[in-house]
Amino acid sequence: MRSSQYLLSTLKEDPSDAELISHKLMLRAGMIRKIAAGLYTWLPTGLRVLRKVENIVREEMNKAGAVEMLMPSVQPSDLWEESGRWDQFGPELLRFVDRHQRDFCLGPTHEEIITSVIRDELSSYKQLPANFYQIQTKFRDEVRPRFGVMRSREFIMKDAYSFHIDDESLEQTYQTMHQAYCNIFDRIGLDYRPVLADTGAIGGSNSHEFHVLAESGEDAIAFSTESDYAANIEKAESLAPQGEVAAPTQDIEKVATPDCRSVKEAADSMGIETRDVLKTLFVEGASEEHPVIALCLRGDHELNEIKASKHELIADPLVLVSDETVKANAGCAPGSCGPQGLNIPVIVDRDAAIMSDFACGANEDGYHLKGVNWKRDAEYTDVFDLRNIVAGDKSPDGKGVLEIKRGIEVGHIFQLGDKYSKAMNCTVLDQNGKAKPLSMGCYGIGVSRIVAAAIEQNHDENGIIWPESIAPFKVAIIPMNMHKSENVQQVAEALYQRLESLGIETLFLDQKESPGVMFANTELVGIPHRLVVSDRGLKNDTIEYKNRDNSDKADLEVANVVDYIQSKLNNN
Amino acid sequence: MRSSQYLLSTLKEDPSDAELISHKLMLRAGMIRKIAAGLYTWLPTGLRVLRKVENIVREEMNKAGAVEMLMPSVQPSDLWEESGRWDQFGPELLRFVDRHQRDFCLGPTHEEIITSVIRDELSSYKQLPANFYQIQTKFRDEVRPRFGVMRSREFIMKDAYSFHIDDESLEQTYQTMHQAYCNIFDRIGLDYRPVLADTGAIGGSNSHEFHVLAESGEDAIAFSTESDYAANIEKAESLAPQGEVAAPTQDIEKVATPDCRSVKEAADSMGIETRDVLKTLFVEGASEEHPVIALCLRGDHELNEIKASKHELIADPLVLVSDETVKANAGCAPGSCGPQGLNIPVIVDRDAAIMSDFACGANEDGYHLKGVNWKRDAEYTDVFDLRNIVAGDKSPDGKGVLEIKRGIEVGHIFQLGDKYSKAMNCTVLDQNGKAKPLSMGCYGIGVSRIVAAAIEQNHDENGIIWPESIAPFKVAIIPMNMHKSENVQQVAEALYQRLESLGIETLFLDQKESPGVMFANTELVGIPHRLVVSDRGLKNDTIEYKNRDNSDKADLEVANVVDYIQSKLNNN
Repeated sequence: MRSSQYLLSTLKEDPSDAELISHKLMLRAGMIRKIAAGLYTWLPTGLRVLRKVENIVREEMNKAGAVEMLMPSVQPSDLWEESGRWDQFGPELLRFVDRHQRDFCLGPTHEEIITSVIRDELSSYKQLPANFYQIQTKFRDEVRPRFGVMRSREFIMKDAYSFHIDDESLEQTYQTMHQAYCNIFDRIGLDYRPVLADTGAIGGSNSHEFHVLAESGEDAIAFSTESDYAANIEKAESLAPQGEVAAPTQDIEKVATPDCRSVKEAADSMGIETRDVLKTLFVEGASEEHPVIALCLRGDHELNEIKASKHELIADPLVLVSDETVKANAGCAPGSCGPQGLNIPVIVDRDAAIMSDFACGANEDGYHLKGVNWKRDAEYTDVFDLRNIVAGDKSPDGKGVLEIKRGIEVGHIFQLGDKYSKAMNCTVLDQNGKAKPLSMGCYGIGVSRIVAAAIEQNHDENGIIWPESIAPFKVAIIPMNMHKSENVQQVAEALYQRLESLGIETLFLDQKESPGVMFANTELVGIPHRLVVSDRGLKNDTIEYKNRDNSDKADLEVANVVDYIQSKLNNN
Repeated sequence: MRSSQYLLSTLKEDPSDAELISHKLMLRAGMIRKIAAGLYTWLPTGLRVLRKVENIVREEMNKAGAVEMLMPSVQPSDLWEESGRWDQFGPELLRFVDRHQRDFCLGPTHEEIITSVIRDELSSYKQLPANFYQIQTKFRDEVRPRFGVMRSREFIMKDAYSFHIDDESLEQTYQTMHQAYCNIFDRIGLDYRPVLADTGAIGGSNSHEFHVLAESGEDAIAFSTESDYAANIEKAESLAPQGEVAAPTQDIEKVATPDCRSVKEAADSMGIETRDVLKTLFVEGASEEHPVIALCLRGDHELNEIKASKHELIADPLVLVSDETVKANAGCAPGSCGPQGLNIPVIVDRDAAIMSDFACGANEDGYHLKGVNWKRDAEYTDVFDLRNIVAGDKSPDGKGVLEIKRGIEVGHIFQLGDKYSKAMNCTVLDQNGKAKPLSMGCYGIGVSRIVAAAIEQNHDENGIIWPESIAPFKVAIIPMNMHKSENVQQVAEALYQRLESLGIETLFLDQKESPGVMFANTELVGIPHRLVVSDRGLKNDTIEYKNRDNSDKADLEVANVVDYIQSKLNNN
């Protein structure tokens, strides 16, 4: 591609409205432009990268035996009513009516459509397992779209759906897809981790997310130092602490803790550590019988809303109650609450349940209790895993301790089981001639998000450093003062034509621009291999080669340049 | 692809709700399935064809110098307000509000978005001409979606937009794109015609449509028998008739024509030809000054609404007025109207203007006049080209006469001029440093519609006959009784693997099915080359080859089969 016939559209300055480095660089490198909140145009350079990611995903899906199809973006409400999600799904589901006042939505995911297609097309267990995917534009009406294409409203996703006669077959395909995802991220060249994950609004049982590791990641991921264990912190289980609860050694004592609004302030006021304070939170219950539930955690631990909401007494999703409701149940403001004397269910985190001689709110504004002990001074209804794990916790598999890193979720796979097939009556005849609801898996990859995640992981102060697999161009040719030197022009032109004829995607900077601008642009856009053609070099019959990641730099004989580039490309 | 790992999903019977042959065959061949009115899932076989069309379009666009980008489907209303189309566009534009109650639409076309992108990215005439395209999902909320993907609501379109400093540059790119379109339809292997067209809601001046010729086409296309002239009948000009108006030879005479509701009935009642009757229609005017306009045509000619609406006095789009309004202006029902004594503008078709001694309504219910002559008996305001051309008319270029065929519109190119760039202030600095609105072209191809149009043109009683360029598979391997014959299985398997390794897309029918079903399915799906592996053939060391279009059939030696297939593929 000649730059004169292309739209490079780089920007010198950081755009003011971008926070993330990938968002800044995608704008500066002329990859995307914002049309409205969460809506982007992919300019030519961005689209070239996007298509490369798409193609790697497509190839690996095909290898894994998934078959491509294409479902509509616009989906009728009746299928969503069958699955029950028309009412369950929040405002992220963009709903609208057509000219005949019929209800539709813009698809954020396609479980309903594929289930409706498959229930009509498959009839026998002999046709199973089956696995279908599409690479398609999705829409989620995010309340606060941000970070460019990292969290946009319209985005490109690969979504696959597998169908099985039983869970054993599902497990096999799940493992095949798990491996295919690893192949995809390996081929792209990303530092990523598959981690145990919560299933969220999609539903089902077993689930893994694939995270690209990056400081800017929205998710926290826990890893074992000594095993393969890795989980989203939303999901990571904290091991039940070993040992007996120590016997009480202190008497209960009421102390004034005026103006203390946080656990930290209360602990400091009492001259103890936050870990020796029990904190009590009030959340909505799952039933009318118990509309409010108290949760107790160690003062230095954080509530994990996802894990807590799995408790049968607690509303899912978890909702904190108002200060008025706290007052009505505890008789005080949130900062002075404790478990003593409450008339509502009290659910205690495992680590909080083995505390003894602890401090907690006195259920009286401005006062705490010290020397409190379970059973003797306060009762609880149940013990449950309520907290986020913290670095240094033991790994749930018993091997090593947990570390925490930040990750960007780029893939998510689920064992759905029969959630959709039962609701939508998607059955086949089994070996005994009986109708059986299918077991389903679903497998998503955020294709457009991968582009941003790759940049988060691969950049320097000058711009993007693309993994070669998804670079928009493999080679940049920079001719110095081409418009003055016929020799430079001829050599550069011949080199360009030779590389293009070999199918090596090359950006030829053939416009009248200063060397500084051309250097800056090719570094910003992150083209892996740079060739500079100059009169000075040609005097010695050489062209200057440089690798974007600075791993290699050489003056190459003109006759050897193409071979050199080819060997570089083949090595990757 | 092994059929056991694929979703062939053919249907034996014609679906009841499909009229067009392409719609029936796409359903029967397992290419598409309806999700809701005008919304289809592309099953694997359909998608394979769709992607092949897409790729041909993409390659030819790239060759023509157009650069690919990708704009969002969801578009904010503010850009459509800038262009003025938010209010102009009818209910085909699907409008909705997001969760923050902001107005958006699902893009039926992208003039507004590209103009907004380009006005920000281009600043100088030196960056021109520039030409960008995308291949993307579009949505038009058709009042009556029908004919499968031929007129669906969600569909895939290639839309390109070019930008120029002047109309001369636009004309050059327009010609380049015209040629690229011819290359695309040639490569796909379609019988098509570029024809002069009306610009419709998109606007602009010069415009061509590309039509695939087929009996079922919704459009009528006029061709010269002796020149390249071809035009959509909506657009085709009727030549002004030569010669003087004959002098009156008859006196005016009023005759009773009771119960005659049509021109034909009135002509029969009077014992004359319909071509000797003048018919008068009443339509809405373009201005408040003249709210009703009378149009007069020869009785055997049809009103062309598109051409008529170009007259400055006539509303665009053309609207016929109510019977009450006719009565108020002519004093009678529509069947008895004529131009005599009307107090509103009367616009007369060129062929009607040279009639003499003609008949027309008497503006009195149940009566006509005979022997009427212009000037002597009735006045007109203007003469204009109001009628559809008919077969046998002289070609507007003066060469030959016109024939009429049916066509399916698969492409449309426009010279927009500065319609959008002026409205949206898309300017660059010209050679003199002055801001100048860009001249624009736009170029559409109905990618999904091409798939249906190709079937309309290429099928027989057994199913689809794909042009090789877009066939879902090139070769089908049918093993006879494979599950009983180890020899058949081994040979078929080896053949499959060899063809796949050569990159020849092959469907291997490896399921336990009767030969009849396998033959029927491969014919229905339209796979160009069929190989039958049977014990009977293998006894003589042969495999049976047959071409889908019956042009070739041979028993090939096993060792020669792959070479034979390769030579067949290379010849196409």
